Amino acid sequence: MIDTSMITKPIRSVLIANRGEIALRIARTCRELGIRTVAVCSSADLDSAVARYADETAHIGPPAAKRSYLYLPSLIETALRYGVDAIHPGYGFLSEDPDFAQICAENGIVFVGPPPAVMEELGDKARTRVAMREAGLPVLPGSDGAVPTVTDAVRIAEEIGFPVVLKAAAGGGGRGIQVVPTAAELPESYRRTVALARQIFGNGDVYLERFLPAARHVEVQLLADGHGTAVSLGERDCSLQRRHQKLVEEAPSPGLSEELRADLGRYAVAGAKAIGYVGAGTMEFLVDPDGRATFMEINGRIQVEHPVTEMLTGLDLIAEQLRVASGEPLGYGQQDVRPRGAAIECRINAEDPDRGFAPTPGRLTELRQPGGPGVRIDSGFVQGDTVSPHYDSLIAKLIVWAPTREQAIARADRALAEYVVEGPGVRTTIPLLRRLITHPDFAAARHTTRFVDGLLVADRDEQAA
Amino acid sequence: MIDTSMITKPIRSVLIANRGEIALRIARTCRELGIRTVAVCSSADLDSAVARYADETAHIGPPAAKRSYLYLPSLIETALRYGVDAIHPGYGFLSEDPDFAQICAENGIVFVGPPPAVMEELGDKARTRVAMREAGLPVLPGSDGAVPTVTDAVRIAEEIGFPVVLKAAAGGGGRGIQVVPTAAELPESYRRTVALARQIFGNGDVYLERFLPAARHVEVQLLADGHGTAVSLGERDCSLQRRHQKLVEEAPSPGLSEELRADLGRYAVAGAKAIGYVGAGTMEFLVDPDGRATFMEINGRIQVEHPVTEMLTGLDLIAEQLRVASGEPLGYGQQDVRPRGAAIECRINAEDPDRGFAPTPGRLTELRQPGGPGVRIDSGFVQGDTVSPHYDSLIAKLIVWAPTREQAIARADRALAEYVVEGPGVRTTIPLLRRLITHPDFAAARHTTRFVDGLLVADRDEQAA
Repeated sequence: MIDTSMITKPIRSVLIANRGEIALRIARTCRELGIRTVAVCSSADLDSAVARYADETAHIGPPAAKRSYLYLPSLIETALRYGVDAIHPGYGFLSEDPDFAQICAENGIVFVGPPPAVMEELGDKARTRVAMREAGLPVLPGSDGAVPTVTDAVRIAEEIGFPVVLKAAAGGGGRGIQVVPTAAELPESYRRTVALARQIFGNGDVYLERFLPAARHVEVQLLADGHGTAVSLGERDCSLQRRHQKLVEEAPSPGLSEELRADLGRYAVAGAKAIGYVGAGTMEFLVDPDGRATFMEINGRIQVEHPVTEMLTGLDLIAEQLRVASGEPLGYGQQDVRPRGAAIECRINAEDPDRGFAPTPGRLTELRQPGGPGVRIDSGFVQGDTVSPHYDSLIAKLIVWAPTREQAIARADRALAEYVVEGPGVRTTIPLLRRLITHPDFAAARHTTRFVDGLLVADRDEQAA
Repeated sequence: MIDTSMITKPIRSVLIANRGEIALRIARTCRELGIRTVAVCSSADLDSAVARYADETAHIGPPAAKRSYLYLPSLIETALRYGVDAIHPGYGFLSEDPDFAQICAENGIVFVGPPPAVMEELGDKARTRVAMREAGLPVLPGSDGAVPTVTDAVRIAEEIGFPVVLKAAAGGGGRGIQVVPTAAELPESYRRTVALARQIFGNGDVYLERFLPAARHVEVQLLADGHGTAVSLGERDCSLQRRHQKLVEEAPSPGLSEELRADLGRYAVAGAKAIGYVGAGTMEFLVDPDGRATFMEINGRIQVEHPVTEMLTGLDLIAEQLRVASGEPLGYGQQDVRPRGAAIECRINAEDPDRGFAPTPGRLTELRQPGGPGVRIDSGFVQGDTVSPHYDSLIAKLIVWAPTREQAIARADRALAEYVVEGPGVRTTIPLLRRLITHPDFAAARHTTRFVDGLLVADRDEQAA
């Protein structure tokens, strides 16, 4: 079951093929484990926190990601030059690229992620959907794999009923998705999604599912070693999103029955075993208002929101990834995973929510972080640093823990109130985050993935009136 | 058993009768609980972090503590003027002054601490020692209460054997203590300790105990409500001290047998019940190399090192203090306290360890705090603030948590390495802290309270040679 092209060996040095907070996050764990780190940086990041932090720093190209963080030859050449045992890809960039994993393997470098063959399979969301259904996971009614023609799309959609959603098989992270309310819009939507999928992902395969208009995004963190052990580390709720981009994540997911919670954990483990998954991964589900869960997709990498799971379980997921990648067995089972309390992560972005979340890059002339009990900060910036227009606008992740969800909400709000982020032209998501987490619908866990957009539309209507 | 002069009522507003990190710590919890805060500040602290943070700030006097933070009339007048329900005294200053608690009660203000009568009793260490022995706690051989004359001191010391230690009955926190190695030195030491006790504490009572030359400082955090429930929240080890001032604290205490650990918890609860203790308190013990524990003293206040207990138990001790002070029952018992993992606190002081820990106050032109998994910072300063020469030199407490002690040490060292504290003339304990926690004797838990001073003496000898 386990792909033999995955190489493992003791890891004493790691090249971090990423930037920002996740690069620093990886470097911190490496330092605790006594692992030497090589940070790769574009010209825009040469004075970044991770560049100052890592044991060694290598300049890999100009700011444009295509010519630096996404430029495979430069990354491999640097890894070989510095003689590292492993490459950690973080999230985004090349973290889900099976070719990158394969080339690492061919060069004797451990790729910290699933085996290349598994990554290949995960890259085809339509195929994964079928594999998960065969493994016994509930999936939404939809197509068996990619839909080859408009005629097929119309036939399948009529069978399962509108609204439906078209998804790029090679997509992910909320991109390449099109909701189709009625049959009339389907032909045009199909053509547009195929064209978009070709353009973004270089692959026009598109599949079709029933659309759930109101659902919660619930995902399970799983961890599997190369020796046949897989465990669920519990679920996270990431329903506070704006246009499929997560803003707030929490664990556990509020308002789930204990039965559903246990089911989700079992699904994740069964799904992981069915495809020979190795490493840290996330299985995403939609949970409808009646408490029915359906499989959505698997993310074969560390997630932005992994810290909330760390707060509950006490595990260091980056350390676990490195252990598994070096061939170690997990050394514990499902019964040893004992989550405690509640955790909330708020993404503090340099964006203006009032102008459609337009990025507001700039120099952070003031950056004061909250502290005290139950507060954790993961950030790639210190006061005086500049948020670059070349990359995502994440300034920091604020993660809080408390014994109960209610206390965690109060703590998150207290910590957000302490945050000071200032700079010419810089706006942040902090005021919106405070409004969201203190909203009665969030407190009562009545929110779905449409909650944020609904709130913002209501704001606009109010302003227009 | 419970002193009726202790008043309780719902707490909706709190005056924080302290400064620095503990004042901010209290304000943070109050904000999470929706409690209004009034910060009192001397002229030196008007622009401090807590002054900016609290709902209201009151100027109570000039920098000298005697005329501000220790000036009782000004504090009470301010509390009455702002109409607060309660006063939280923090640690140090007036936190252990029974008169302060009594005057609060007389003015209808809740004092967040034990009942005045208990505080009165705790103020006499010689009497507490006898009370604890009667409650079944192991105490070192010594005098029954204060030793009235030199002749008595000689007689008792001959009975129990040298070395002995003389302690001011009104002392505490390591002050007013004199070790006497042989009989020849006793008369002179006795006279000096009495004179010193009179001078510092206004009370010349002195008691005598056998001196333990090599021991660990282990203390138990206890929590008791006004309804007869008392629980132990586990022990802390504070053996890394220089001249009785703690530098590093951790929980749990390494190298204790499970039997002794359980005994210490039972002693703390039995001792608390014997004196009608209410609130958060700490029972200090010495543990000798053979694993025998003896009672040392009770501290009737929140301790600097309380966060390590919070990291293990998940409780917010300030919130628990406020709940108990408002008359609520704890609502849980000993079986509900389930500590997890290991935590270490490092005190980052503006001091020069190479010059006898001389304070190095000054402006903090650079202050960058570590972050990431398992890291908590409690500090009263942000970049640009000034460490005042008027008060203690604590810049920040770095507290880390990890599943095991070994991992917590690695994490603390990683986080200390990330710390940047710079300013003209400012030196810190960071390099010494890193040296201490990575020392093989600390890793093996072979250290006693004499470890740090021994290391520093060895340094001096080496330099002299």
